[in-house]
Amino acid sequence: MAEGEEWRARARRELGREPEASRGLDGVPRHLLSTAADAPDPGLPGLPPYTRGIRASMYAGRPWTIRQYAGFSTAEDSNAFYRQALASGQQGISVAFDLATHRGYDSDHPRVEGDVGMAGVAIDSADDMARLLDGIPLDRVSVSMTMNGAVVPVMACFIVAGEEQGVAPEALSGTIQNDILKEFITRNTYIHPPGPSLRIVADVIAYAARRMPRFNSISISGYHMQEAGADLVQELAFTLADGREYVRAALARGLDVDAFAPRLSFFFAVGMDLFAEAAKLRAARLLWHRVMAGFGAKRPESLMLRTHCQTSGVSLQAQDPLLNVVRTAYEALAAVLGGTQSLHTNSYDEALALPSDAAARVARGTQLILQEEMGLTGVVDPLGGSFHVERLTRDLADAAWALMEEVEALGGMAEAVAQGMPKARIEATAARRQAMLDSGETAIVGVNKWRPPDQPPLDVRVIDNAAVRAAQVARLQHLKGTRDQAAVDRALSALTEAARAGGNLLEAAIPAARARATVGEMTAALEAAFGRHEAPPRPPGGAYGAAASGAPAFESARAAVAARPRPPRMLVVKLGQDGHDRGARVVATAFADLGFDVAVGPLFQTPEEAAEEAARRDPDVVGLSSLAAGHLALAPRLVDALRARGVTAPVIVGGVVPPQHHAALHAAGVSAVFGPGTPIPEAARAVLALLEPA
Amino acid sequence: MAEGEEWRARARRELGREPEASRGLDGVPRHLLSTAADAPDPGLPGLPPYTRGIRASMYAGRPWTIRQYAGFSTAEDSNAFYRQALASGQQGISVAFDLATHRGYDSDHPRVEGDVGMAGVAIDSADDMARLLDGIPLDRVSVSMTMNGAVVPVMACFIVAGEEQGVAPEALSGTIQNDILKEFITRNTYIHPPGPSLRIVADVIAYAARRMPRFNSISISGYHMQEAGADLVQELAFTLADGREYVRAALARGLDVDAFAPRLSFFFAVGMDLFAEAAKLRAARLLWHRVMAGFGAKRPESLMLRTHCQTSGVSLQAQDPLLNVVRTAYEALAAVLGGTQSLHTNSYDEALALPSDAAARVARGTQLILQEEMGLTGVVDPLGGSFHVERLTRDLADAAWALMEEVEALGGMAEAVAQGMPKARIEATAARRQAMLDSGETAIVGVNKWRPPDQPPLDVRVIDNAAVRAAQVARLQHLKGTRDQAAVDRALSALTEAARAGGNLLEAAIPAARARATVGEMTAALEAAFGRHEAPPRPPGGAYGAAASGAPAFESARAAVAARPRPPRMLVVKLGQDGHDRGARVVATAFADLGFDVAVGPLFQTPEEAAEEAARRDPDVVGLSSLAAGHLALAPRLVDALRARGVTAPVIVGGVVPPQHHAALHAAGVSAVFGPGTPIPEAARAVLALLEPA
Repeated sequence: MAEGEEWRARARRELGREPEASRGLDGVPRHLLSTAADAPDPGLPGLPPYTRGIRASMYAGRPWTIRQYAGFSTAEDSNAFYRQALASGQQGISVAFDLATHRGYDSDHPRVEGDVGMAGVAIDSADDMARLLDGIPLDRVSVSMTMNGAVVPVMACFIVAGEEQGVAPEALSGTIQNDILKEFITRNTYIHPPGPSLRIVADVIAYAARRMPRFNSISISGYHMQEAGADLVQELAFTLADGREYVRAALARGLDVDAFAPRLSFFFAVGMDLFAEAAKLRAARLLWHRVMAGFGAKRPESLMLRTHCQTSGVSLQAQDPLLNVVRTAYEALAAVLGGTQSLHTNSYDEALALPSDAAARVARGTQLILQEEMGLTGVVDPLGGSFHVERLTRDLADAAWALMEEVEALGGMAEAVAQGMPKARIEATAARRQAMLDSGETAIVGVNKWRPPDQPPLDVRVIDNAAVRAAQVARLQHLKGTRDQAAVDRALSALTEAARAGGNLLEAAIPAARARATVGEMTAALEAAFGRHEAPPRPPGGAYGAAASGAPAFESARAAVAARPRPPRMLVVKLGQDGHDRGARVVATAFADLGFDVAVGPLFQTPEEAAEEAARRDPDVVGLSSLAAGHLALAPRLVDALRARGVTAPVIVGGVVPPQHHAALHAAGVSAVFGPGTPIPEAARAVLALLEPA
Repeated sequence: MAEGEEWRARARRELGREPEASRGLDGVPRHLLSTAADAPDPGLPGLPPYTRGIRASMYAGRPWTIRQYAGFSTAEDSNAFYRQALASGQQGISVAFDLATHRGYDSDHPRVEGDVGMAGVAIDSADDMARLLDGIPLDRVSVSMTMNGAVVPVMACFIVAGEEQGVAPEALSGTIQNDILKEFITRNTYIHPPGPSLRIVADVIAYAARRMPRFNSISISGYHMQEAGADLVQELAFTLADGREYVRAALARGLDVDAFAPRLSFFFAVGMDLFAEAAKLRAARLLWHRVMAGFGAKRPESLMLRTHCQTSGVSLQAQDPLLNVVRTAYEALAAVLGGTQSLHTNSYDEALALPSDAAARVARGTQLILQEEMGLTGVVDPLGGSFHVERLTRDLADAAWALMEEVEALGGMAEAVAQGMPKARIEATAARRQAMLDSGETAIVGVNKWRPPDQPPLDVRVIDNAAVRAAQVARLQHLKGTRDQAAVDRALSALTEAARAGGNLLEAAIPAARARATVGEMTAALEAAFGRHEAPPRPPGGAYGAAASGAPAFESARAAVAARPRPPRMLVVKLGQDGHDRGARVVATAFADLGFDVAVGPLFQTPEEAAEEAARRDPDVVGLSSLAAGHLALAPRLVDALRARGVTAPVIVGGVVPPQHHAALHAAGVSAVFGPGTPIPEAARAVLALLEPA
């Protein structure tokens, strides 16, 4: 057509080259120009396949739910935070548990010393759960809980807390994450091996299908995949493939698809690629409709994908932290334009610490502004029909479907996970992304471009880990001294028996929670039957170098490494229950590709175990990666344990470490601290400088 | 069609009512649902009528220009600020002049004591201009100047500064605002009466058409209209009608339309109504193409509307100021999605003071993030085809065209302005908006909903007005002592003669600027021929009460006023060169509608003149409205002048006053300070409490 030719000629003249599409990391083209001819018909909102949204009037009748994920320290502290947030415009609560709870350890367990109350709230029993939810009417305020590993004990405590507030399971509303497959892929808060873990997922779904009609029995989560580095197609495909696997597991239990499918919910991350993120959510609905129609679901509620979204954590930067307000605002908008049902907005200080009250206020205010000031809730799917967005929706859906078919060809997601396929794919993307940043091919304002001048450090929230732990330990002692121990023992035996013989595990755990068996004890009762899963460490390397090769900073760092008489040996360790290993994996991969001889220790070590490992391996440098705020407790113990074993290698720390902590870490003997955003070639040169002269 | 019916039935069920369109303040419907049938074909980007943008490849080849409006204190201070900004990612500069300069007064003039260096930089001569632009290569960095009243002296100084840098007018790039009509409508920085003012506009356009091919000779501005309260249709229509009037003025000068039209540029505000703001910019291009085709323009550059945008100042709030980062981010996105050519993002502290360095950094970073991190610059007009946006674009264009036809029926914009039509329409909208806020019908987060707890005051930029003025006065003395006074006198006489006899005034002013005649002297030379314009005060009242009537807070405040034995008399004054009278007009209107007997003093009074006025009127309360930061200098003088004349009425201050200044104002005898966001019924009750018992 003549007009199209005229456009092309003009664009060519303006650009001095052919007007060509760019490509996301996901490989899907972002076309420079789209027109009516490129855009498929999206249908109507509220009607299958729900591309334009699951409700016909969204958000006119009801805006999305403002649901901020929060939790820290003790149940009382978190309870006060929730109440304040609800009084300030938040519309539902979302509990962040500490990593000890995630991994099924009570606060007095020796393996969790650095984790108690740090990255979430410490919950050891139904008593703690009752304190956490005190004064929050559970028949009216919905409660979302991010819990996967210890889902059975925690759900049992929640149901008992409701019961003791006078609210039956039937009246509880909210969401339990209960998505264990993605833990094996990325976040590693699994407890039991994959087989029993999948059984637990299905047990929770089955219990909720029978007793909790207002409760989402699973939140199938792509969020952590994007956080771990997945591109949008990977996030879409692996999440929907996880969902498909859970449906199969529930069907295998003999459940009717329309009995449980309406209570399946989703959870996606929303990053900075504005239109692609909105299109991703539209594509997710389109594809889930296809998946569920394939299972023969009939009820509209079974066919529509409902989702919570959270703005991207990895997009937040420690440099120029107020710019994170901007990033989060754009991400929140993308989620809303994509048609999310509820939303968490991150706080601007989360690249450094848990949210301060001031930062949490801005995060919540971002959503209130979106709901109140912008006229967005009076228009259904304002992007609908956009040539670019409709085309991108289809292209993302097609690419994700192709990857889902790959998973099917492997035998489904459980099998793909067992083979390590999704983890490897995501790690490769993460390494490529890091290489593109390190080379300057992509830019982050304030990080690898337009760096700020020195700024005073932000006031960040500080958790007194030792005090929280002491309080929890005292409570546990009191609990154990006042409960009916025989009743506890009976209930725990019954739980182990149910694990061995069959029977719904959530149903079996409720009497134990009621009798005040602790989360750790209930987990141990299951562990008696199922064991605890240990993932073997995998060797790093390859993906970073492939992308970084040729970049001057990479090549010069590689040459500097090569100039040493032998490859420097580096041991990368994670301590405590912090399973967020994206950072450790990317760093290990990149250092390996730079020529270091890198070993990665197993997850969940104590400092002493890591020091033993170091004594065995004799590294030139030990790197501790900390994402979950345990570094102040754990790094000094690591240094001491190393020195006690005669290991003199310098210790470096990387990850989410606020500047305020640097001095304490240095005083404890840490040689260098690398905050978020450090280019890896730069870190490598700093490490070389620490090593003894060659 | 059956599907549409099914959608309607569902939406009705979800909403419990018919699914209906909402309406903006502009009266244009925001439809709940739009589909392909509702959306006109927008054409292609880079092709007439340019709805999808003026470039075929925008922003792939070249992103918009990050151009931050800034200026304060002395030329040196502002110069340092510009250099820092250019080194930190800004891409062009945009000069804010102080109000003394705007109104053609040198810094040593007694009428401008509180204004020098406060809301912009003080520029008295070509020497100051040279200092302002020192080290900024004018052949490479484009300079935008917001100047209307004193456009001839300031442009002359700019051209001389370029000349002395070795850059000819032909090589200078940038923009001069030169839009005097909107000053008569809203901002009041006019100097001469309308007739000579329009001649000056045409002279600048004519000079630039001949000598400055890279310079925009006018920036036809809707920005200040939206700031003054205009809705989007008013902003669109009055701005384009202004443009049409300027084209007529230039044609009347005998210029060929295609000789000057390519250098006409526009300037719009971008507020919080995300999609409507983007649609507004698209509609503006559509309509301008229609206007210019009507003038017989042939060159594509004559037919395409190029625009600068600035995020909304009135949308910024003093409460919870970090939320302004969010607001500005959304507004900036709307400007970019609308296809702006350059953009200013406001700083989060501007509801309180001039931008601090930290706040300016975040504002600039917002645009850098938009350009670097979001993939937006790889897609042309991503909203194109959106059913909602295309429909809204057409509907806004239709409504604006109808209002433009109203203006035409009055005889064009100069005549409409003379009759006060645009001013009255905009004020009515502003009063309605205030009434809707005061009644809670519309919400602003942190202001009339979700108010924050007490917060520590922000660190704001403080200008030492007295020091700046002293420095400028010393410079003026030095200048006058060292220049060739005879040459100055000759040049000034020639300028007056050109004003009387005809001849291009900008051309005539350049020799005067070169000889170091001051801005005030050149203005006086023009004033000798043209006089100085004085607008009579207009009585307030009507629009607020019409919208607020029935709201409980309004009715109860009205009853309290009515309970007094006679209507309390209030005198509202503006002091110094601060012509931003939206706040004063809205407050006066609302108090009048509440039953006060309100008089509004003329603009541009000295404190002593205002006190004389008060002595004559014997008010019960005197209200000073301050938007331009002069209150610390002017309010104490006002109180003293009142007391010296025996006026004992309490003095209140409203406007942009940071909390840090409250104590000083109270100490000077001010009885109450009302910051931005105070609901007017609340302010009225506070004023009643100040009055002597009835």
